[in-house]
Amino acid sequence: MSLISDLMSAIQILPGVGPKTAQRLTFHLLQKDQSGGKHLATTLLTAIEQVGECETCRTLTENSVCKICANPNRLYNQVCVVETPADIIHLESATDFNGKYFVLHGKLSPIDGMGPSDLKLQMLVNMLADSECKELIIATGSTLEGETTAQYLAHMAEQGGIKATRLAHGVPLGGDLEYIDNSTLAHAFASRTNL
Amino acid sequence: MSLISDLMSAIQILPGVGPKTAQRLTFHLLQKDQSGGKHLATTLLTAIEQVGECETCRTLTENSVCKICANPNRLYNQVCVVETPADIIHLESATDFNGKYFVLHGKLSPIDGMGPSDLKLQMLVNMLADSECKELIIATGSTLEGETTAQYLAHMAEQGGIKATRLAHGVPLGGDLEYIDNSTLAHAFASRTNL
Repeated sequence: MSLISDLMSAIQILPGVGPKTAQRLTFHLLQKDQSGGKHLATTLLTAIEQVGECETCRTLTENSVCKICANPNRLYNQVCVVETPADIIHLESATDFNGKYFVLHGKLSPIDGMGPSDLKLQMLVNMLADSECKELIIATGSTLEGETTAQYLAHMAEQGGIKATRLAHGVPLGGDLEYIDNSTLAHAFASRTNL
Repeated sequence: MSLISDLMSAIQILPGVGPKTAQRLTFHLLQKDQSGGKHLATTLLTAIEQVGECETCRTLTENSVCKICANPNRLYNQVCVVETPADIIHLESATDFNGKYFVLHGKLSPIDGMGPSDLKLQMLVNMLADSECKELIIATGSTLEGETTAQYLAHMAEQGGIKATRLAHGVPLGGDLEYIDNSTLAHAFASRTNL
């Protein structure tokens, strides 16, 4: 069963897939859905071959410039900085933001050896200098590194005379107070708004 | 992002993978592990191309006859019937069984239109006729269809003058009685053994 066990090992590179799941997926691909499996394999090869970073905003794209950067209707007056390309998809589906994005592919983290040059922040500086950007929306995560990165970016924006904003913290919509952690609740309480 | 969304759709053929997981896997393959992704795609293509059913026992193999059927040290005096190739891997890792297997690729199920010919039981009849089989170990699952299939196979074995056996039911090892369903517990109680 060597080719089959090769496939089981190969599938285990997927995050969250252990030996049991790999076995189940392998037999599914070989028995139940061969045509889907072929399509998956060829699409994966093509995508790995052709997809790279957008020259402007660093999101993943099969072209040299991504659809959002290439869209003349999207304005450079607002630039939203995110950690990953997935964050762009999430924001695009949730908001009606009509500006541009910049993807860091990480966050500042001295422990992991991630400095400003690893995030290619010079590209962001160039983007801001070349455009009429009025607001830098910093949408990094609310982790220690995400907040540090936000501080760094805010300082950078300030030096360029650009307003920096940060996503609001608070109670998630539809969330019971019971399930919210203390720090978030304290923050939401302190930042309470008029009704 | 068309090639990227093509990949996200293609990945969703995997059982248990919805849009969110597909997105996570896609970005993992494109950003974090391109070489693993390439290896996965080529292995998958080769496996789908080359893997088929063993001519003798119907398990999946890249050769015309699987390793167990081709092994002269494995004896035909016991033949174990299972539903899927995965069951063989499971039994091989758990037991020291030294006989041969036969894979049904399903079970008798009139509702799903699965009859004896769909399970290619004639191949099993031929295998039993050509060999010196003394015992047919029926290891189908303990579902309604699995039990029906077991009854059918037992009848078949009886007609060929071969003893049919079935995996024992009872309390799983390491299992508290508290978590065992009533039918299993009743069965285990009725089939109690001397200490």
